[in-house]
Amino acid sequence: MLDVSQLQLDDSSTTPIYRQIANWLTLRIQNGELGMAGRLPATRELAGLLKVNRATVSAAYALLEESGLIEGHVGRGSFAIRPISPAPPAQTLDWSTVLPATQPAEAAPALGSIRINFGSSRPNGQAFPLPAIRECARQVLDGPEASEVLQLGSSYGYGPLRRYLLEGAGNEGIARPNDEVMVTNGCQQALDLVSRVFSSISGGVALEDPSYHGLLRVFSRQNLPIWPIPVTAEGLDLAALEETLVRHRPRLLVVTPSFQNPTGATLPLSSRKRLLKIAESYGVVVVENDIYSQLRYTGEAIPSLKQLDATGNVILLRSYSKIAFPGLRVGWVIAPREMISRLAEEKHTADLHSDQLSQAVLLRFAQSGELARHLEQTCQAGAERLKTAFEACQRYLPTRAKFTRPEGGMSLWIELPAPLRTDAVLERSRELGVDFLPGRTFSLSNSHQRAFRLCFGGLAPDCIETGFRLIGEAITAELASHEARKFVEPAMALV
Amino acid sequence: MLDVSQLQLDDSSTTPIYRQIANWLTLRIQNGELGMAGRLPATRELAGLLKVNRATVSAAYALLEESGLIEGHVGRGSFAIRPISPAPPAQTLDWSTVLPATQPAEAAPALGSIRINFGSSRPNGQAFPLPAIRECARQVLDGPEASEVLQLGSSYGYGPLRRYLLEGAGNEGIARPNDEVMVTNGCQQALDLVSRVFSSISGGVALEDPSYHGLLRVFSRQNLPIWPIPVTAEGLDLAALEETLVRHRPRLLVVTPSFQNPTGATLPLSSRKRLLKIAESYGVVVVENDIYSQLRYTGEAIPSLKQLDATGNVILLRSYSKIAFPGLRVGWVIAPREMISRLAEEKHTADLHSDQLSQAVLLRFAQSGELARHLEQTCQAGAERLKTAFEACQRYLPTRAKFTRPEGGMSLWIELPAPLRTDAVLERSRELGVDFLPGRTFSLSNSHQRAFRLCFGGLAPDCIETGFRLIGEAITAELASHEARKFVEPAMALV
Repeated sequence: MLDVSQLQLDDSSTTPIYRQIANWLTLRIQNGELGMAGRLPATRELAGLLKVNRATVSAAYALLEESGLIEGHVGRGSFAIRPISPAPPAQTLDWSTVLPATQPAEAAPALGSIRINFGSSRPNGQAFPLPAIRECARQVLDGPEASEVLQLGSSYGYGPLRRYLLEGAGNEGIARPNDEVMVTNGCQQALDLVSRVFSSISGGVALEDPSYHGLLRVFSRQNLPIWPIPVTAEGLDLAALEETLVRHRPRLLVVTPSFQNPTGATLPLSSRKRLLKIAESYGVVVVENDIYSQLRYTGEAIPSLKQLDATGNVILLRSYSKIAFPGLRVGWVIAPREMISRLAEEKHTADLHSDQLSQAVLLRFAQSGELARHLEQTCQAGAERLKTAFEACQRYLPTRAKFTRPEGGMSLWIELPAPLRTDAVLERSRELGVDFLPGRTFSLSNSHQRAFRLCFGGLAPDCIETGFRLIGEAITAELASHEARKFVEPAMALV
Repeated sequence: MLDVSQLQLDDSSTTPIYRQIANWLTLRIQNGELGMAGRLPATRELAGLLKVNRATVSAAYALLEESGLIEGHVGRGSFAIRPISPAPPAQTLDWSTVLPATQPAEAAPALGSIRINFGSSRPNGQAFPLPAIRECARQVLDGPEASEVLQLGSSYGYGPLRRYLLEGAGNEGIARPNDEVMVTNGCQQALDLVSRVFSSISGGVALEDPSYHGLLRVFSRQNLPIWPIPVTAEGLDLAALEETLVRHRPRLLVVTPSFQNPTGATLPLSSRKRLLKIAESYGVVVVENDIYSQLRYTGEAIPSLKQLDATGNVILLRSYSKIAFPGLRVGWVIAPREMISRLAEEKHTADLHSDQLSQAVLLRFAQSGELARHLEQTCQAGAERLKTAFEACQRYLPTRAKFTRPEGGMSLWIELPAPLRTDAVLERSRELGVDFLPGRTFSLSNSHQRAFRLCFGGLAPDCIETGFRLIGEAITAELASHEARKFVEPAMALV
């Protein structure tokens, strides 16, 4: 029999009462205290004993039922421990019975059929400074730190790299006195770890719409409300943000203020200041995804949110992936100590720590001045690519098409005029050997059906020019087929 | 007003009905379809409209309330969309209001006070073959693959390493025809990704007791029942396993058959066969954590569960961390294609892919024969360390202490006789400069209060000898204080 006097419910806990009850009952059942096929008290009865609402008990029982511990009828309020049943006959495991159902993956174009791929936001591999990276690797493995680099490390990251990053951030006015740094496997892992820490944050999370698909994937895994905030050519729509904050009170906002992926949009200085005011007013934690800002090809640099912030509620994410080598998985987070310590706990659970050879090699690459040299060349090449892309937009896109005009980064966002739809244009483009990601990929509601993202950062100017020309051909063919359909339909009706 | 005729409940879905209702309502509220401060139907009313139990609706509303979307009274069944409230006054963010509460970290000994650390299951860094690893890194960065290694890669892992691992596993009779391989950031990430894929597996997960603390951390993050199965000197207790399977029907079992961490216990061949029969009978997915089996110092090798398995329900986890360099984060999973494809989806969300420089360097290290050479030396050194540890156990531990007698791996499990308790001995040992992890670290229920783990793998024989001697002194002092207390107490009572 269940002795409920042992159960201490804690109103001040962040764990809801029904979950406290479920956790306690799980232990009782697990310890065999209810017998092999015992019954649980009826929901009404347990509610009375615990002095809670019956529905709270129902919610606790629903959790236990979901985990297969008990079975019964929620409506009737009567539940039993799952009884012993005979072993099923031996068989080869049918994985579909144990794996949760997922959406089927999107059909990809046939391998080898794509000659020009605007689909991936990555740097130009042909420009990688191989001699410099070779020399950095040699120095690391010849140096006194070699054994330490190969040995088990810290969840916070490789010490010398962390010191270098935090000092640099201090000198730039980015790191505040209470800030700490943690190394991650690129920005993707930083986003994933943030989502783990905030998996039950009150009010959910506000994300840009459109948003980088990897960011949508991370937050849609969590059982959190997601509030999409439109991104205009001038970055996040702050009026829409404020409306969402007033109505739904999300406590977390993820924003990419510079050269946003996918739109390339950049938030002007005045808007950054206003965004911080808004975040401060509503007590919102701001995650600043800042992996593109150093890829500025024209115009003036704008301070990051983290630099402008006076209240300490900005979490800054940076990475070497876009400015150097995505194959070396090294990014980092700068945030108040309290936050970094939670992230480090999650990091420890997720994979102990990041690879140390790459951390040590990239530290040498940065310290030696080779990173700055490489970045300068990348920005020169980027300026040329961007110019080629703009000219190609004007030459090959329909006059009513819209496209963003970023001053850096890796991608452009194009919106086609009606009746064109991206999926049809994409199908024709792939037949011509050109691939890109359709706009719907960057939303959770399958919107942006006329939009698409073109990543120009990793492609040579002649590839960009040819790619746009072929997309232009695909658009022309698609428009012609629309005209043909218009013409055919009335003729059919006459029969 | 809510038009519930649009809501299609799917009985066959793995998503419970109450969650389907909650998801649908979230979207309606998010889209503003219920107005800025609208009300939800009473639980009874909505239950009637949807033809479900009222408690199912209550559970759905409880979820919405938890995410801050609605507020009301579960008991009364009346709920309203959270109304607009004025912005709170500006303030510096108090992180404790947004970060979920966690348990305070265990107090660690003062930095620098520990001379001999038995606490970490890691290899001896002084034996790392630096010239060989230098040469491998040089070859990778001088070779034709250098740019590919530095560029964005695949969630499945670096192609040439995957082919090498899968071919090797095929030759060893480990990989079955339907199997695939995926690279992870060491075994820790493999465990974390497995837990993500199975975060809602029916019946929960069975884990060894005691178990590696990193494994406990991974699974206790998920909202899953965890069933501890005792580990004896002969490995997992199969009778206890079967009883748990009969009673609770967990569909997932994580087991370390060779040189288990922390006990060092190894499952004999006959038990492995029986374990597979049991797993087959109950349709259980077996995760085989096999990162120590190559560290065998004496005795005959035993085939892995994956080698013995005929039904395809074993997921094999391996890693270069224990047999080579933990600072290079490279492990891998071999499992049926269906499972690997789910793991790769989670990997893609978690951090895109593993670091490619380390993957390419370790591939060369393995292919060149240097790994085999290093492993041979590691096993020779391990045999000496193990012998030293056994002799020290006999010399310095109380006669009634028990200790495991592994034939390899990195750790010993010691159980002290009453009245000794590990925490008291640990405190005294730390004062003498020796650290280790207490038994309770390896359980979720704070058990194993008289046990502790000693990792000998990374320590030189004279360190092992000295460390045991000092622990022996700590034990002697602790026993003396018990005697003194016994003596003092009656004396005090006479006053």
